[in-house]
Amino acid sequence: MTSARLARTAITGVILIALCGGASGGVDARALATIALMLGLAKLGGDVFERAKLPTVLGELSAGIVIGNLDLLGLRGLGSMLNDPSLALLAELGVVLLLLQVGLESNLRDMARVGLAAFAVASVGVALPMGLGYGVHALLVPDRTWHTHLFVGAVLTATSVGITARVFKDLGKIDSPTGRVVLGAAVIDDVFGLIVLAVVSGLVRGAESGQGVDVVAVLVIVGKAIAFLGTAIALGGAASRSLYRAASVLRVRGVLLAASLVFCFALSWLAYQVGLAPIVGAFAAGLVLDEVVYQDLATRENRPLEHQLSPLGELLTPIFFVLTGAQVDLSSFADLDTLSLAAALTAAAVLGKQACALVARSPGVHRLSVGLGMIPRGEVGLIFAATGANLILAGMPVIGPTAYAAIVLMVMITTMVTPPLLSWSLRRAPGGPPRVADVMGGAEPS
Amino acid sequence: MTSARLARTAITGVILIALCGGASGGVDARALATIALMLGLAKLGGDVFERAKLPTVLGELSAGIVIGNLDLLGLRGLGSMLNDPSLALLAELGVVLLLLQVGLESNLRDMARVGLAAFAVASVGVALPMGLGYGVHALLVPDRTWHTHLFVGAVLTATSVGITARVFKDLGKIDSPTGRVVLGAAVIDDVFGLIVLAVVSGLVRGAESGQGVDVVAVLVIVGKAIAFLGTAIALGGAASRSLYRAASVLRVRGVLLAASLVFCFALSWLAYQVGLAPIVGAFAAGLVLDEVVYQDLATRENRPLEHQLSPLGELLTPIFFVLTGAQVDLSSFADLDTLSLAAALTAAAVLGKQACALVARSPGVHRLSVGLGMIPRGEVGLIFAATGANLILAGMPVIGPTAYAAIVLMVMITTMVTPPLLSWSLRRAPGGPPRVADVMGGAEPS
Repeated sequence: MTSARLARTAITGVILIALCGGASGGVDARALATIALMLGLAKLGGDVFERAKLPTVLGELSAGIVIGNLDLLGLRGLGSMLNDPSLALLAELGVVLLLLQVGLESNLRDMARVGLAAFAVASVGVALPMGLGYGVHALLVPDRTWHTHLFVGAVLTATSVGITARVFKDLGKIDSPTGRVVLGAAVIDDVFGLIVLAVVSGLVRGAESGQGVDVVAVLVIVGKAIAFLGTAIALGGAASRSLYRAASVLRVRGVLLAASLVFCFALSWLAYQVGLAPIVGAFAAGLVLDEVVYQDLATRENRPLEHQLSPLGELLTPIFFVLTGAQVDLSSFADLDTLSLAAALTAAAVLGKQACALVARSPGVHRLSVGLGMIPRGEVGLIFAATGANLILAGMPVIGPTAYAAIVLMVMITTMVTPPLLSWSLRRAPGGPPRVADVMGGAEPS
Repeated sequence: MTSARLARTAITGVILIALCGGASGGVDARALATIALMLGLAKLGGDVFERAKLPTVLGELSAGIVIGNLDLLGLRGLGSMLNDPSLALLAELGVVLLLLQVGLESNLRDMARVGLAAFAVASVGVALPMGLGYGVHALLVPDRTWHTHLFVGAVLTATSVGITARVFKDLGKIDSPTGRVVLGAAVIDDVFGLIVLAVVSGLVRGAESGQGVDVVAVLVIVGKAIAFLGTAIALGGAASRSLYRAASVLRVRGVLLAASLVFCFALSWLAYQVGLAPIVGAFAAGLVLDEVVYQDLATRENRPLEHQLSPLGELLTPIFFVLTGAQVDLSSFADLDTLSLAAALTAAAVLGKQACALVARSPGVHRLSVGLGMIPRGEVGLIFAATGANLILAGMPVIGPTAYAAIVLMVMITTMVTPPLLSWSLRRAPGGPPRVADVMGGAEPS
């Protein structure tokens, strides 16, 4: 018995060691080893955080931080495995599928009920962080022009819906009034952020060329984003109905999953085409997809759509969070200028969104959770920073290296603090029906 | 009503047109559009072939041929969308998952029962096509040396298990004696093919350098391959038991799927490390994984492993077959030298494997189906050809451009003819229990 167990342990060890040496394989086989390693560590990390009653997504992010920073321990090669661009597509698919699942758990009618609250939350959540960001940067780096202050402010506007959505999903609270307000606001937020980026970039380009702002170009961007969301909401239901009706004619297996993925990927791509993040399209796809539309197909295949999507999410979504964690460069903590600017920007980012709680006046909404749910900044903030780093004004990039590193740190900190804070706050939030919830205030069993 | 339907059709049309213009998007969003297009066309193609009572996999291959050859119709851009290397990883995952599913449907004990028959089939299926390939090439291209003839012969040895496995799977015949013999032989085949490639490459390199064959190097390759399969079969069960025991301690969701994928990807990577195709490792993983080992986890998660794997396969496997179909360049049909060599090689490839039927003497085995199931040559043949194209002997590549194009055509034809032939033959084969099956000979309802 003991020798058999020894043999088993040895074999497992050999496989693990072999996996860790994965950097020496061919491209495709190496990617397989990398995915195996990411999945295994994501589950291990998730387990550690689950036991500490913290959200599992934080465990997946931590697994990523560990893998991404093994270079610091002299273990080279492992971090570079994550730079494979093919993994980026898997991660993209993972976050797109997550937002589709999140969208499927909400529906348009309930979203419309919190529409006004979401709009108010988004407006405050864009304006205040922008003002605070401008002020903080003007105070700490007074030698840069107002263009840079404005750009840094703009970086702080857009909420990263991925992290927040995952926490709401893990706690089964997506279809709560709070979940709807936060997710709705995060989507509107993305549109606002886009408009702000267009205006600020236009101002900088105008200043550099000595001409004014290109008003027409700004208006086109704004128009495209609004037209996309409007069209998706107005016509998405009808489009999905005709898609599923056409699909139900097909006699092959797996039609429901294929049709849903085609619809989701098509809307993600369309969102990207009008300048929005693909995940906004995926969320819109989930939102407009109504169970009534695909009920017939689900009955025929004897498997609900959610059960078919969840294994896809379980393989691909951890890849997104592990890769996000791996972006964190622990060595950037070493510079004091970067650290102080990062701390100030993080404070601005967090406090700016807390004012959202004040305007989230909708029945059953847990206002503290709204403010906390709006904290994370993610890919959109990083895209803004990269845009600023490529914009030249008077021979200097609008976002210099120090500001860039500080922004990356801000993104990382806001991303890491949100899951535990939001999860703590949501567990304290009332879980009952909207009307009486505010009075009850009972804690859920955790 | 009519106007509403018109609006729906228009929207669907716009989405389809937008998808077809996908070449203009960013990298990630473009890949999403490409995947949506591939999935949609794969299902459409599958439906057409399903209605014609042909295997759906042929529809997916045909969808690929259409997309890959749209350039011929002046529709540029679409074919190039498929060259995204990230899609290659998705395809690789797709075929790895297919072989894992196929392996799970078989088990070691039943495989061992047909082991001798599979070994005999594999031996004949390597020796005869090799001899025929040598003869055909020596006859048609007499001005090349015996090294090239031998190499072309070697290209014809390895069976592509992907196509055959898919047809057996679609017809629910993987766990039949015939299925076991063919799949077992295809795996042994791959090992034999590898040995042949090593020996032939060694002979060519020896001839070029004027030295003899590097016997040690050849023996090392052979030893590694045999050691991998032997170890996987001998210790895989114990390794998987300890992996699942460790995994069952984890408190997070999706542990069963994650552990199974980690085991599968790890074995695929190990197979690649010893010089075998990753899919051989995936098949071995499925083969040694016993339901008893993961029953506890499946019960805890209330979802069988097969149900969790099938959505993954439904998204990823069609990508493999569509990409395989897209490799087919219809314009290469235009050259007569290529065509005649391709025809002769295809005949050698097909006839050489039919002799396998003669040695497949195991109870309940449908011998015609064994011969037909061994026909397809796939990635391994193409890898051999690419190796030959890169080997230089007396200033010329061992495999020249004409031979290479003819080999690609041979791969394509053998791949395309197998599904309808095998599916026709399997529907005629007895479906009853092994012992009495040969006598009964009753046809299944198709």
